[in-house]
Amino acid sequence: MKRLNRKKVDRSTPVYTGSLVEEPVGIQTFRFNQDSLVEKKNVSTVAKLNFKSQDEICWLNVHGLNKPEVIERICKNAGVHQLVIQDILDVNQRPKFQEFEGYWFMSIKSVLPSDVSVVDIEQVSFVLSKNYVFSFQEKKADYFSHIRQRLRDNVGLVRQRGTDYLFYLMLEAILDNYFKTLSDIEEAVDAFDFINSQEKFTPELLEDIEKLKLKVSNIKKTILPIKDFMNSFKRLEFDLIEKRSGKYFWELRDLCLSLIDQCDQLTMNLESNVNLFFSVQGHRMNQVMKVLTMVATLFIPLTFLVGVYGMNFTHIPGLTWRWSYLSIWIVMLVIVGAMLAYFRRKHWF
Amino acid sequence: MKRLNRKKVDRSTPVYTGSLVEEPVGIQTFRFNQDSLVEKKNVSTVAKLNFKSQDEICWLNVHGLNKPEVIERICKNAGVHQLVIQDILDVNQRPKFQEFEGYWFMSIKSVLPSDVSVVDIEQVSFVLSKNYVFSFQEKKADYFSHIRQRLRDNVGLVRQRGTDYLFYLMLEAILDNYFKTLSDIEEAVDAFDFINSQEKFTPELLEDIEKLKLKVSNIKKTILPIKDFMNSFKRLEFDLIEKRSGKYFWELRDLCLSLIDQCDQLTMNLESNVNLFFSVQGHRMNQVMKVLTMVATLFIPLTFLVGVYGMNFTHIPGLTWRWSYLSIWIVMLVIVGAMLAYFRRKHWF
Amino acid sequence: MKRLNRKKVDRSTPVYTGSLVEEPVGIQTFRFNQDSLVEKKNVSTVAKLNFKSQDEICWLNVHGLNKPEVIERICKNAGVHQLVIQDILDVNQRPKFQEFEGYWFMSIKSVLPSDVSVVDIEQVSFVLSKNYVFSFQEKKADYFSHIRQRLRDNVGLVRQRGTDYLFYLMLEAILDNYFKTLSDIEEAVDAFDFINSQEKFTPELLEDIEKLKLKVSNIKKTILPIKDFMNSFKRLEFDLIEKRSGKYFWELRDLCLSLIDQCDQLTMNLESNVNLFFSVQGHRMNQVMKVLTMVATLFIPLTFLVGVYGMNFTHIPGLTWRWSYLSIWIVMLVIVGAMLAYFRRKHWF
Amino acid sequence: MKRLNRKKVDRSTPVYTGSLVEEPVGIQTFRFNQDSLVEKKNVSTVAKLNFKSQDEICWLNVHGLNKPEVIERICKNAGVHQLVIQDILDVNQRPKFQEFEGYWFMSIKSVLPSDVSVVDIEQVSFVLSKNYVFSFQEKKADYFSHIRQRLRDNVGLVRQRGTDYLFYLMLEAILDNYFKTLSDIEEAVDAFDFINSQEKFTPELLEDIEKLKLKVSNIKKTILPIKDFMNSFKRLEFDLIEKRSGKYFWELRDLCLSLIDQCDQLTMNLESNVNLFFSVQGHRMNQVMKVLTMVATLFIPLTFLVGVYGMNFTHIPGLTWRWSYLSIWIVMLVIVGAMLAYFRRKHWF
Amino acid sequence: MKRLNRKKVDRSTPVYTGSLVEEPVGIQTFRFNQDSLVEKKNVSTVAKLNFKSQDEICWLNVHGLNKPEVIERICKNAGVHQLVIQDILDVNQRPKFQEFEGYWFMSIKSVLPSDVSVVDIEQVSFVLSKNYVFSFQEKKADYFSHIRQRLRDNVGLVRQRGTDYLFYLMLEAILDNYFKTLSDIEEAVDAFDFINSQEKFTPELLEDIEKLKLKVSNIKKTILPIKDFMNSFKRLEFDLIEKRSGKYFWELRDLCLSLIDQCDQLTMNLESNVNLFFSVQGHRMNQVMKVLTMVATLFIPLTFLVGVYGMNFTHIPGLTWRWSYLSIWIVMLVIVGAMLAYFRRKHWF
Ligand SMILES: [Mg+2]
Ligand SMILES: [Mg+2]
Ligand SMILES: [Mg+2]
Ligand SMILES: [Mg+2]
Ligand SMILES: [Mg+2]
Ligand SMILES: [Mg+2]
Ligand SMILES: [Mg+2]
Ligand SMILES: [Mg+2]
Ligand SMILES: [Mg+2]
Ligand SMILES: [Mg+2]
Ligand SMILES: [Mg+2]
Ligand SMILES: [Mg+2]
Ligand SMILES: [Mg+2]
Ligand SMILES: [Mg+2]
Ligand SMILES: [Mg+2]
Ligand SMILES: [Mg+2]
Ligand SMILES: [Mg+2]
Ligand SMILES: [Mg+2]
Ligand SMILES: [Mg+2]
Ligand SMILES: [Mg+2]
Ligand SMILES: [Mg+2]
Ligand SMILES: [Mg+2]
Ligand SMILES: [Mg+2]
Ligand SMILES: [Mg+2]
Ligand SMILES: [Mg+2]
Ligand SMILES: [Mg+2]
Ligand SMILES: [Mg+2]
Ligand SMILES: [Mg+2]
Ligand SMILES: [Mg+2]
Ligand SMILES: [Mg+2]
Ligand SMILES: [Mg+2]
Repeated sequence: MKRLNRKKVDRSTPVYTGSLVEEPVGIQTFRFNQDSLVEKKNVSTVAKLNFKSQDEICWLNVHGLNKPEVIERICKNAGVHQLVIQDILDVNQRPKFQEFEGYWFMSIKSVLPSDVSVVDIEQVSFVLSKNYVFSFQEKKADYFSHIRQRLRDNVGLVRQRGTDYLFYLMLEAILDNYFKTLSDIEEAVDAFDFINSQEKFTPELLEDIEKLKLKVSNIKKTILPIKDFMNSFKRLEFDLIEKRSGKYFWELRDLCLSLIDQCDQLTMNLESNVNLFFSVQGHRMNQVMKVLTMVATLFIPLTFLVGVYGMNFTHIPGLTWRWSYLSIWIVMLVIVGAMLAYFRRKHWF
Repeated sequence: MKRLNRKKVDRSTPVYTGSLVEEPVGIQTFRFNQDSLVEKKNVSTVAKLNFKSQDEICWLNVHGLNKPEVIERICKNAGVHQLVIQDILDVNQRPKFQEFEGYWFMSIKSVLPSDVSVVDIEQVSFVLSKNYVFSFQEKKADYFSHIRQRLRDNVGLVRQRGTDYLFYLMLEAILDNYFKTLSDIEEAVDAFDFINSQEKFTPELLEDIEKLKLKVSNIKKTILPIKDFMNSFKRLEFDLIEKRSGKYFWELRDLCLSLIDQCDQLTMNLESNVNLFFSVQGHRMNQVMKVLTMVATLFIPLTFLVGVYGMNFTHIPGLTWRWSYLSIWIVMLVIVGAMLAYFRRKHWF
Repeated sequence: MKRLNRKKVDRSTPVYTGSLVEEPVGIQTFRFNQDSLVEKKNVSTVAKLNFKSQDEICWLNVHGLNKPEVIERICKNAGVHQLVIQDILDVNQRPKFQEFEGYWFMSIKSVLPSDVSVVDIEQVSFVLSKNYVFSFQEKKADYFSHIRQRLRDNVGLVRQRGTDYLFYLMLEAILDNYFKTLSDIEEAVDAFDFINSQEKFTPELLEDIEKLKLKVSNIKKTILPIKDFMNSFKRLEFDLIEKRSGKYFWELRDLCLSLIDQCDQLTMNLESNVNLFFSVQGHRMNQVMKVLTMVATLFIPLTFLVGVYGMNFTHIPGLTWRWSYLSIWIVMLVIVGAMLAYFRRKHWF
Repeated sequence: MKRLNRKKVDRSTPVYTGSLVEEPVGIQTFRFNQDSLVEKKNVSTVAKLNFKSQDEICWLNVHGLNKPEVIERICKNAGVHQLVIQDILDVNQRPKFQEFEGYWFMSIKSVLPSDVSVVDIEQVSFVLSKNYVFSFQEKKADYFSHIRQRLRDNVGLVRQRGTDYLFYLMLEAILDNYFKTLSDIEEAVDAFDFINSQEKFTPELLEDIEKLKLKVSNIKKTILPIKDFMNSFKRLEFDLIEKRSGKYFWELRDLCLSLIDQCDQLTMNLESNVNLFFSVQGHRMNQVMKVLTMVATLFIPLTFLVGVYGMNFTHIPGLTWRWSYLSIWIVMLVIVGAMLAYFRRKHWF
Repeated sequence: MKRLNRKKVDRSTPVYTGSLVEEPVGIQTFRFNQDSLVEKKNVSTVAKLNFKSQDEICWLNVHGLNKPEVIERICKNAGVHQLVIQDILDVNQRPKFQEFEGYWFMSIKSVLPSDVSVVDIEQVSFVLSKNYVFSFQEKKADYFSHIRQRLRDNVGLVRQRGTDYLFYLMLEAILDNYFKTLSDIEEAVDAFDFINSQEKFTPELLEDIEKLKLKVSNIKKTILPIKDFMNSFKRLEFDLIEKRSGKYFWELRDLCLSLIDQCDQLTMNLESNVNLFFSVQGHRMNQVMKVLTMVATLFIPLTFLVGVYGMNFTHIPGLTWRWSYLSIWIVMLVIVGAMLAYFRRKHWF
């Protein structure tokens, strides 16, 4: 985990702490109300934007955070606090929600459904006021493309409602990716099959299980703060969320609770797999030992017996008897039969 | 777990997210008061139903949710919110309770007592107002048949009381199925008998235990929210539950607590079985090793001894002595006897 | 666990759900004040009892619950609610406490100190008002005989105080049985001695430990609600408990906390025994393997050596030498001595 | 655990429930203010003591509780409630704190730093009012000797302040003994060294660890209620503790928290030792098996080989060749060398 | 852990309880406001310092606590309470925060990023008022050198703001060291690689893991109280922190939460390594046993077979047949081939 070096950096100089330093920076804006929509791509000068208009809502989306001066310019222009600017750029912090005068700041993590064994977590930050929403992503992603489409086509409620509804749609899109990620992990967990597996059974398998446990725990930790924010939206009175929109944010809380439930269930499932792993490991040992014990138990007494008649004593009864050899074979077969019966009764094979 | 694809679907278009897409849809209505009862089966047009009547109570039951338009029509007719319609149809969400103006919405899970190794969970939703109760089930089941009978025969209090008592009876019927399911699992757990079992003892057994652990945990998770609703009914003032009915809902809370206690006890019991499983696995290994050790320990020294007299040296004392063979057998029997005594003292057999 | 079949039974028909259907039903009454006491055994008609008398206190004790009509008659006569009657008879529910107008209902579990491996839990219910106390037991037991004696002999405060003090004495008597039961379990736990035990060491032993864990957990679960009631007595204002009696109920809370502490300590102790069990099991395996390894390691090389001189080659140096046989024995003894020294140094014996 | 037999004993007859029934009973009193101090040892008649004096503070210390009548006399004289008298004598109860009119009662446990494997817990009770402090110990101990010395020599604040400061000093002395006890346990835990130990490694070792776990848990349980009392002193308004003394009791809360932290850390450390124990046990088994496997793997093939040339077939090639014996030794040494190289590569030795 | 011997020491005599008794004591002061700064090193007489000046802020830093009289002089001069002086010197206590009239006292732990296996925890104490900040460290360290630099160069906000901002900067510097320490541990944990490691695999490895677990738990315990202080700063109204500085302390709370999250994640990771350790240990045992079983199973039957033809019976069929020796070798090779095929199918090699 990279960290903001607080010793060298003063709070007044914002620094990007992520790893995507080569990501191209892009800015899009949507200005809309019920009747009109103006969309701008690759905006270069945001300085002239007026965010105070009462007639329309402005959504400004930034992807790529490696140019602190751009983010700083946008925020300063809208009167956003210096601490918020640093929080947008410090991608190694915990999800947070903070109220400021006239606007809110929220920074959450987004989990992308990629390869199961890797945790691909990105930070997404929001600045929300009555008239504008800013969203900041670390890299270009298609989280919000369906929202843009609905804006353009005036589908659903998004053009009819305020910034709160747009904010809700974006949060829902991010939570949806969590569902997909957890579904992928669930599939990976269901695919474990120690018992019928004919492949090599080694500790690498356990390592995979343990990695998934850590991953699920990581994911749960990023959802828990989101749930807490949603809870507080319900409890407290917030002037940035209209009364008729409250129900939507309550829905998001339910989504978070579902995700947390799923994380817990996955963790339990993985713990079960740990137990099963050790059981199968013990079972394999048992199998190996049974083979050894059966072979050794069958042949060691026989080897002794033939050794007896290999002694060079002059006087051994029966050495010259015609049916000795046949008799000893019969004796040995009886011993073997008795032992096999014993193993059978013990359910060893 | 199937999910509502929120990206493609706007909140204004309700979608059924369950798997029972072929289930025939059926609607029954009961309109009753203390003096009269009108029952209608296979209702096709609900549009004309008047739910505002002060004189009688209407219970409308729907099974089969794969025709969203039917549910939508019923709800819109009664003035139920769009979000509720979607929640009735989205069967993959958490149990929830929400107050709206003039009515309540509650969506819980019902566990059917089926094969122990399968979790058969269905969603049942309720819309409750002063004059009507709607109940929505995913498939036709006989949960409520005893309630219908009591309505028809005017048995008990159901015709004397309001919608709250009817609602209570339906919730109680659902909780009753939980009791039956847990009883079945309890029987399955009690049937585990590693110690006296003569069958093959393999990791599949542990897999069964772990599956039951997950199942019990799943069930507990569906009861916990119901308990929370019941708790809040007591704590808060609700105008849809009459004061004289409050005690019945408090009873339901006690039922939930009993169910949760039983889940915890089952989980502990299953954990004990995990421990026992590993112990028996270790014990079996011990038994196998003891057999190997006894056989090897008895015969390896004897094999050495007869090997000594199998050497081809010219000068070995006693080779030609008449009683050598008898003597060596006596020596060997003494050794075997001593070893058996040693094993006996060690309680190896 | 037997259950009240809620589908078949209406709330208005009370049903006994326990197993003691053959238990004879008995009713005793004590009417007393500071100056006088009237005791009646085998009361048959309770209908004529007047429970409203301001001058004396009435204690009515019932054992045997298999005649619902008797309990119903008593309760109806005193104006006790229908739900309470059912709760007295439904012995499979959780401990509960409920306030009604003019009286309280409390139903708790009582654990009898019997055989350690069995959980013998009985339900005892109380109806408490200013003028009377009803107590309902599933079977005849001697819980309260010392209270009766004190009543008759006017010993202690019981005749000086109201129903609250009598109620306190009965609760204390029930908690006392918990102490005895836990003491018995404690003795059973202390009796486990895997390490010095010379008996057969099998998974049955672990099964016993695990059963005790479940038993202790069961007991704890029945105490927890009693503690909660006692806590609420302190916190809330209750008109049925006089101020001067409050301290006694606070004492009961402390008793419950002590019992819970003891349960936790027992559980920890049993967990330790689980660990010890697995350790001893591993140790026994170690011992068996050491014996095998020592015997095999001592004799396998020697067997090889004598095998060498058992080969039928014509040209083997020393075959005909006079001291070959003696020399090879010396060599073998040196090998054995070296190996024993090695085992010694490894602390194998 | 001995118990107060509540069935036989009425609350009005106090009974000592401890084991130190032979302990001689002793009473000391200190009457002091800033200017004067009167100390009395072996006080026999406490009846004449006046505890209501406004000018001086009286500290009465009792050790030995096996004469209930003595304790009863002291308490009755000062107007202390009957329940308190019983609590002072019932040494098997939980630590408790109770407010009465004009005085407080506190009963806590004191742990003496003795042999690590034994838990030596004593009960110490206090009755605190504005003018007097009573302290009751089960046996004579030197907890408070430094306080007596400071009183006599007028060192520190003890003679300047009220009963609250004296009470604080006594509590601090008791908590100090906890620190010493935990330090002793910490040393015992640090002394475990399974890995380098050359001694016999048996389950007795694990038993020692588990006993320490139980001891630490026991100690923690006696500190937790003390911490709760200290918390409530801060939170609530108490007229028996002067405002300027509040800080001292807050210090005691911090001491308790430190002790609890240390208990938790010790428990974690002991849990680590459990894991290490099982690891070392498994490692020893591994070592034994490696020796067996190496010896068996080296000699079993060789034994087979020499067996081949021990067969009595007439026609075996090379039987009469001059260099057969030498050749077979070379073959065998090559086999041994190859195997040793294999074992080496596998890091078996 | 060394302890303050409370029995011997009165509260009025402060004693240093740490181990750094040889550390040289040093005092530095900074007196500054927006316009000027006066820095003094190696201050010897602090008695003359005036801490009440309204025009400038004074920061006094002390390192080395082994001269109690120095600390006492500083604190007495500023009117700091006797209990605070003792707390500054008692380095073995828990982190604490206490409000006094006109100033605050805070004592926290600082973890230095040193060798991973050692816990190097130092106590840092602060006395904060409107006009001065005192900081006390056990030894000279470079925690605050960047703050001194910013003071001298008037960089950032530190000269513009009051004591609260300076206090915030110092706390942030201390928390930063926690980040570094946890990063080092994280690297050590990631370096564990049991599975591919070719080195000796012994319980020492597990001991390292368990030590890290204890270290992380230790660190978490020192952060938890800091988080609690920060929480209370937000919740309560504090006159020593200006409203505009509140956000900075809220930032510190977020830092603490991040650190706690990281500790939890590390603990989970280490637990996973414990599981992996045992799995690899079991796997190694499996490998050893497979080698033994394969060698023994291959050669024991063959040894028996050649033993058969080593018997000295006169009449054994085929003894003199020309192709006997060749035939028996073919039989033996077929047996070996069959067994190898069996092992292969079982995936033993
Ligand atoms: Mg597990
Ligand atoms: Mg587990
Ligand atoms: Mg675990
Ligand atoms: Mg676990
Ligand atoms: Mg585990
Ligand atoms: Mg586990
Ligand atoms: Mg485990
Ligand atoms: Mg377990
Ligand atoms: Mg487990
Ligand atoms: Mg467990
Ligand atoms: Mg477990
Ligand atoms: Mg366990
Ligand atoms: Mg376990
Ligand atoms: Mg355990
Ligand atoms: Mg366990
Ligand atoms: Mg445990
Ligand atoms: Mg456990
Ligand atoms: Mg465990
Ligand atoms: Mg452990
Ligand atoms: Mg444990
Ligand atoms: Mg543990
Ligand atoms: Mg553990
Ligand atoms: Mg453990
Ligand atoms: Mg554990
Ligand atoms: Mg473990
Ligand atoms: Mg564990
Ligand atoms: Mg364990
Ligand atoms: Mg573990
Ligand atoms: Mg674990
Ligand atoms: Mg653990
Ligand atoms: Mg664990």
